Amino acid sequence: MNEYRLGVDVGGTNLVAAVVDPSFRILSRVSIPAGANRSIDEITADIVKVSHMALDASGADMSHVVSWGIGMPSCVNPATGLLVHANCFGWKNVPIYSYLEGRLPLPLRIENDANCAAYGETLAGAAKGHKNAVMLTLGTGVGGGIVLDGKIYAGADRMGAELGHTKLVYDGEQCTCGQKGCLEAYCSATALIRDARRAITPSINGAKEVFDAAAGGNPAAIGLIDRYTSMLCAGMSSFITIFRPEVIILGGGVSHAGEPLFSRIREKLPLHTFGAEQIGVPPVVPAILGSDAGLIGAAFL
Amino acid sequence: MNEYRLGVDVGGTNLVAAVVDPSFRILSRVSIPAGANRSIDEITADIVKVSHMALDASGADMSHVVSWGIGMPSCVNPATGLLVHANCFGWKNVPIYSYLEGRLPLPLRIENDANCAAYGETLAGAAKGHKNAVMLTLGTGVGGGIVLDGKIYAGADRMGAELGHTKLVYDGEQCTCGQKGCLEAYCSATALIRDARRAITPSINGAKEVFDAAAGGNPAAIGLIDRYTSMLCAGMSSFITIFRPEVIILGGGVSHAGEPLFSRIREKLPLHTFGAEQIGVPPVVPAILGSDAGLIGAAFL
Repeated sequence: MNEYRLGVDVGGTNLVAAVVDPSFRILSRVSIPAGANRSIDEITADIVKVSHMALDASGADMSHVVSWGIGMPSCVNPATGLLVHANCFGWKNVPIYSYLEGRLPLPLRIENDANCAAYGETLAGAAKGHKNAVMLTLGTGVGGGIVLDGKIYAGADRMGAELGHTKLVYDGEQCTCGQKGCLEAYCSATALIRDARRAITPSINGAKEVFDAAAGGNPAAIGLIDRYTSMLCAGMSSFITIFRPEVIILGGGVSHAGEPLFSRIREKLPLHTFGAEQIGVPPVVPAILGSDAGLIGAAFL
Repeated sequence: MNEYRLGVDVGGTNLVAAVVDPSFRILSRVSIPAGANRSIDEITADIVKVSHMALDASGADMSHVVSWGIGMPSCVNPATGLLVHANCFGWKNVPIYSYLEGRLPLPLRIENDANCAAYGETLAGAAKGHKNAVMLTLGTGVGGGIVLDGKIYAGADRMGAELGHTKLVYDGEQCTCGQKGCLEAYCSATALIRDARRAITPSINGAKEVFDAAAGGNPAAIGLIDRYTSMLCAGMSSFITIFRPEVIILGGGVSHAGEPLFSRIREKLPLHTFGAEQIGVPPVVPAILGSDAGLIGAAFL
């Protein structure tokens, strides 16, 4: 008999739940608004509700489900059991397990959503067949996920792997985290759009518009994309130099630029990476599961 | 009956071998000049010779020795079996195992020397009792070693963990590796001395002299040490943000500055580290085994 798993992706906009089969196929997927400004009680009640809805939609019975995994936009401190800081909900040090444990008759696991996405892409997506991968999600921020030897690596206290907040420029641009010069402050979609509004036109609304302007021959856009991709390669080089992953996966808004992004990366990454001439660099590939990566990763926690 | 292990530290200046007991005590230690400009045959013959000398000096019999581990100033590519690049010997892609395997009747393991030092300090030194540690050796270059869950972590292809060559300043100072802006280009003893010669006096010969000048009230030295320690903290912050280690160990010439270094680190590290306010930073401690760390780490590979 098949064993199914319930995965939930908790975001600031939507709460999404899915039932996933042992071949990583999504049998059902249900999304409801997060209502991020509501109380913790209301939001966690809706996490339970959307999980039930996904189960109902799949036609599977609860007795066929073996686990319940939730990707959260933060991490749980194992020493305290508290969800450290979920910005989109205004949560700080929330005892998240006490709100959710036992609400379904299933073992519950909670993990950072970027880690879930990296794990999902490694199980069933762009890095399938690999056991060592690094994923960067280039969106509003820069999410980082690390898979080592087929397992999520989240640091010794499970609060690490925050790749977006490693330093790329000592004392550089202000980051939303309070630090300066983080990778995120240069390589998020937000950072690219910020720079494009300064350099091209204030009406820029998405990363793809900047790539399109560059493709159309706009010199400011070409210069911007050149600098953006160089900095992204320099950022990725540090993770290569540490982890030597089999593959690097890029997700998020910027990754939708496609070949104009990835062709530049293929050209530049070896130039920015320690020892590339002797030992090479791993392929950099686009994420292929979109938001399903986080659902699948959460389901298989 | 005790089981002993043979550890060798191969450096550009000396070849050092030691016999180590199961409690990580060094029973004998023998050093001979490396003669770095000689042929590979001669140098590897001397690696075998110094190993025999250490064994003789220990009074132990070969039958009591269970392994032979060698720390090398480079890493072996497991895909090819070749030692990638040992600068001090002018070696590139040397089939090091074929020179050494079978020369003693013991299983042979070869690992990067910085990884051996980190492992040695974790087994028996500054990080004893911890299973997750990061070590930086602030010497001629910046060596990096990572211990995860009690084991050396050297990257998926065992050619990573080169922490000195992660980027600290995008497009920054030229590094000896050919890249720009590496941690090593700012935080090695060489970098500190370079900057001190520019800013204080060309006669500066060691990192400790710069700390002494700062202690003596020299304003240029104070400014330099302030900037050096800030940059070191920013560099370490990236490894904290990724690994959240239980402890960070600093070795090499700069670490001998002692409390004037470590007191500044205690003050600055939280200011430079993502999430320090919520989740803290690990202690940063001086290495205590000196060159024995590499010997002990190699012996226990």
